[in-house]
Amino acid sequence: MQNFDYRNPTHIVFGQDRLGELDTLVPKGAKVLVLYGGGSVKRFGTLDKVLAGLGDRTVLEFSGIEPNPQFDTLMKAVELVRAEQVDFLLAVGGGSVMDGTKFVAAAAPYEGDTADLLKHGFAPPPIDTALPLATVATLPATGSEMNMGAVISYQGGKFPLMSPLLYPQFSVLDPSLTFSLPPVQVANGVVDAFVHVLEQYVTFPVGAQVQDRTAEGILKALIEIGPVTLAEPENYEARANLMWSATSALNGFIGVGVPHDWSTHMIGHELTALFGIDHGQSLAIVQPSMWKHRKAQKRAKLLQYAERVWDLTEGDEDARIDAAIERTRAFFESLGVKTRLSDYGVEREGIDKVIDALQAHGMVALSEQGDLGLEESRKILEDAYA
Amino acid sequence: MQNFDYRNPTHIVFGQDRLGELDTLVPKGAKVLVLYGGGSVKRFGTLDKVLAGLGDRTVLEFSGIEPNPQFDTLMKAVELVRAEQVDFLLAVGGGSVMDGTKFVAAAAPYEGDTADLLKHGFAPPPIDTALPLATVATLPATGSEMNMGAVISYQGGKFPLMSPLLYPQFSVLDPSLTFSLPPVQVANGVVDAFVHVLEQYVTFPVGAQVQDRTAEGILKALIEIGPVTLAEPENYEARANLMWSATSALNGFIGVGVPHDWSTHMIGHELTALFGIDHGQSLAIVQPSMWKHRKAQKRAKLLQYAERVWDLTEGDEDARIDAAIERTRAFFESLGVKTRLSDYGVEREGIDKVIDALQAHGMVALSEQGDLGLEESRKILEDAYA
Repeated sequence: MQNFDYRNPTHIVFGQDRLGELDTLVPKGAKVLVLYGGGSVKRFGTLDKVLAGLGDRTVLEFSGIEPNPQFDTLMKAVELVRAEQVDFLLAVGGGSVMDGTKFVAAAAPYEGDTADLLKHGFAPPPIDTALPLATVATLPATGSEMNMGAVISYQGGKFPLMSPLLYPQFSVLDPSLTFSLPPVQVANGVVDAFVHVLEQYVTFPVGAQVQDRTAEGILKALIEIGPVTLAEPENYEARANLMWSATSALNGFIGVGVPHDWSTHMIGHELTALFGIDHGQSLAIVQPSMWKHRKAQKRAKLLQYAERVWDLTEGDEDARIDAAIERTRAFFESLGVKTRLSDYGVEREGIDKVIDALQAHGMVALSEQGDLGLEESRKILEDAYA
Repeated sequence: MQNFDYRNPTHIVFGQDRLGELDTLVPKGAKVLVLYGGGSVKRFGTLDKVLAGLGDRTVLEFSGIEPNPQFDTLMKAVELVRAEQVDFLLAVGGGSVMDGTKFVAAAAPYEGDTADLLKHGFAPPPIDTALPLATVATLPATGSEMNMGAVISYQGGKFPLMSPLLYPQFSVLDPSLTFSLPPVQVANGVVDAFVHVLEQYVTFPVGAQVQDRTAEGILKALIEIGPVTLAEPENYEARANLMWSATSALNGFIGVGVPHDWSTHMIGHELTALFGIDHGQSLAIVQPSMWKHRKAQKRAKLLQYAERVWDLTEGDEDARIDAAIERTRAFFESLGVKTRLSDYGVEREGIDKVIDALQAHGMVALSEQGDLGLEESRKILEDAYA
């Protein structure tokens, strides 16, 4: 096991009918900005419950945070926060709204060029303060409700923003708020959570038994939950498990003391930025082909994954690995998430654009080993095409 | 899944050679009291490293915190803290030292009768402040390094003290500090961590898949690690896994949204208080017999435990449950931890004393169902005798 630090201060408030507790969770006297996306939080009544929960505090609203939240949109929120001297941010929505709110929290008090906040990769930007933020999570997927990361779209790219100052103070996770989600978002969420686990688990072995077994447990849970929660949108138990699986997949617990990959995410981000492919879909396209090309580097963990997650113990090692890759692809497809780039109407020439974008963004040495260059990324994408 | 709140702010500093970081972890200018037990932290050089790590801060020491830390001993530390206006507590040791330090943290600023702090069971006592504390954990077992609980011995009983104010600010977990532990303490630690998981897992099913699978993962890890770490005391990887298993067993993560039992602990505490049986040993005595008598209430989870932890899928349900109980007992015995009350030189009449003590301490409605009374506790102990 590698040395590690773990500290996650977010207070999780999990369960049905807990929005009324906002009154005790948000500081008394806070001037609150509620941030959300489109109309669904209004349409399904979530916003009304949030506003009621905030009681007699001064509350402003900022709507229109889009999927893959855009820097320009978020800067409007930053201006509002500065002009109105807002002192608490409450995100109501999915990963994009939560991520966007984290950017606003970091950017509002920042005196430099706020675009610079996006230029530090996985390292924290040089900030020593951020507005306090919290979330009401309505879409289980990204884990943003219990981590310090965000991904922000800027000038045609997707950029991480990570800082310990950006942990939500609390996150309300009410599985029943997800009943009204469109199936495609639920399916994407299952894939997103699944691949979050894979990026921290299918690397090279360092003997981290608790982390490995917990990762395998979340994967098995998602395999069980995925089809059930799609077939029965109001099955509370399934949605509760999906929600807690997604949070647990990226709250740091399975990622301590082990190598991380994230190359599927980095290539996937370019597919989203260039072609508007949903984040979960982009991962479903890249992941199976990634593994085909990284069998040597990931051999031991792929075999462990095959055996412990899919019970594949027959045949030689290569056959088991191939079967595990195909089971993974079939799982994504069974949720209705297509796994070929051509399924999304992208021309084969689009691969050139992805490679150019990876180069422009410095994504030239990906993977847990830092040895995945542009040439190999191209092969992975070609393989993923059809 | 049941509704839950989860918030664990402890900063874990895990790995080799990290005591030098104490200088950045402990507030500058703090007046620090270092609390420890007997001479082993001195003998093996841990104390010297801690003192070096604390740099030029004013540091006082309090030694002599015994296993099952005594109220009277701890009150001496409280007096020292008050007299010297100590403002930061650093526990260096195992569960007893960490638990004792938590009591000192709560008691030092408490203006009432400090014994009253022990009269609230699992509910927090009415305190609104506690001294900041941190730990350097040298014995993987109790999880105290990452939770808000303590167990304190007072007037012949063992009493819980729980408060969110008592989470360590940080805990340094260096597996190499455990190399010098006596084997009996390591074996007890494995059993303690194992039973911590069981108390939160073998109850009744509520469909909490991530918690269940994580619990099963920790159990499987402990089954693998136990014999290896005893046979190879300086096997860093095994000790690292044991340490993180023990912490993960009781940092709240597997316990959210599920019922808790703790009756094995409550009966075990009386065995320790009355007969001086080590805590881990007391659990090894009670657990197998507890299950024999609670098959009906725990049936579904015992079957799940049998299948997923011990791969027991043959035979009828009762046979699988019985086999799982016997495998558990055999696992404890394989570590050198005896599982019969008579193994510890207790007379059969001692059982009467245990029942009297349970009654005196109000332990008359134990278990996740609150239906385990004194009559049944007696049967469990009689069954556990020989």
